[in-house]
Amino acid sequence: MHSDLIGGYWSSMLKIKIIPVGKLKEKFYIEACKEYIKRLEFYCKIEIKELPEGGGLVKEAELIKSELIPGSFVIAMCIEGKLHSSEELAAVFQKVQNQGKSAICVLLGSSEGMDESVKALADLRLSMSKMTFPHHLARVMVLEQIYRAMNINGGGKYHK
Amino acid sequence: MHSDLIGGYWSSMLKIKIIPVGKLKEKFYIEACKEYIKRLEFYCKIEIKELPEGGGLVKEAELIKSELIPGSFVIAMCIEGKLHSSEELAAVFQKVQNQGKSAICVLLGSSEGMDESVKALADLRLSMSKMTFPHHLARVMVLEQIYRAMNINGGGKYHK
Repeated sequence: MHSDLIGGYWSSMLKIKIIPVGKLKEKFYIEACKEYIKRLEFYCKIEIKELPEGGGLVKEAELIKSELIPGSFVIAMCIEGKLHSSEELAAVFQKVQNQGKSAICVLLGSSEGMDESVKALADLRLSMSKMTFPHHLARVMVLEQIYRAMNINGGGKYHK
Repeated sequence: MHSDLIGGYWSSMLKIKIIPVGKLKEKFYIEACKEYIKRLEFYCKIEIKELPEGGGLVKEAELIKSELIPGSFVIAMCIEGKLHSSEELAAVFQKVQNQGKSAICVLLGSSEGMDESVKALADLRLSMSKMTFPHHLARVMVLEQIYRAMNINGGGKYHK
């Protein structure tokens, strides 16, 4: 594509926007997230848009919807979602890029969960575990999995 | 039981020994583990016995076996294990205690995995996810799940 030729590598880079509801408080989780964001910057344009928790799921849902990138592939993290392996998640990312989409939004609910209206508009409801994890730890886990997926697709050695 | 009457609360407290192979390097994961250990001390006698990585899975297996508490319920963490919910894991812990066992050993392999001979002697092969997580992050995750299980069984409010 012409725009790619002009813009080079960066213009064709996948954009990944993580939209978590709720503030990350613990220093160790903030540091862990920073580390994965730093590593992800090699593979994609990564953005974290943290939204305030409170006012109920419907209010949180409206905020989430206002942050979605138009035309992006939307992944809603929810415990009842599909249990993918890391390789399967990497294949989802590859398929999204093959379809010509340039952005993925990853939604993480608050400690109260996520409104059904948000889950309904997602292209994929993804679950990392049948176990319940606190949302701050889930944020670290999802960043690690996104990094792992990008590394798998990039032919890296991180995932053995 | 007489010994319980003499020893009181502490003598009947469940002992949980986590046996991970491989050193935790990242400061943020060390801090996260410390936090969950601190919280777990309210519920059980928690011990982490970190074993050195290297020399192959068979050598690591011998080290792991030498650290097992005789008569304990052994849980081997492995990706192909049983996918339990947090409530199901709590029920496993409750059942172990109801059976009169006083200790649980939780085994976490190195980044290379775990020898089949260790998996074979486990009472439960447990998987937290179909996804692959790095062993340092898995240690934080398993500590959080043990804390959650103890809290569920103790009637706490951590797990909603």
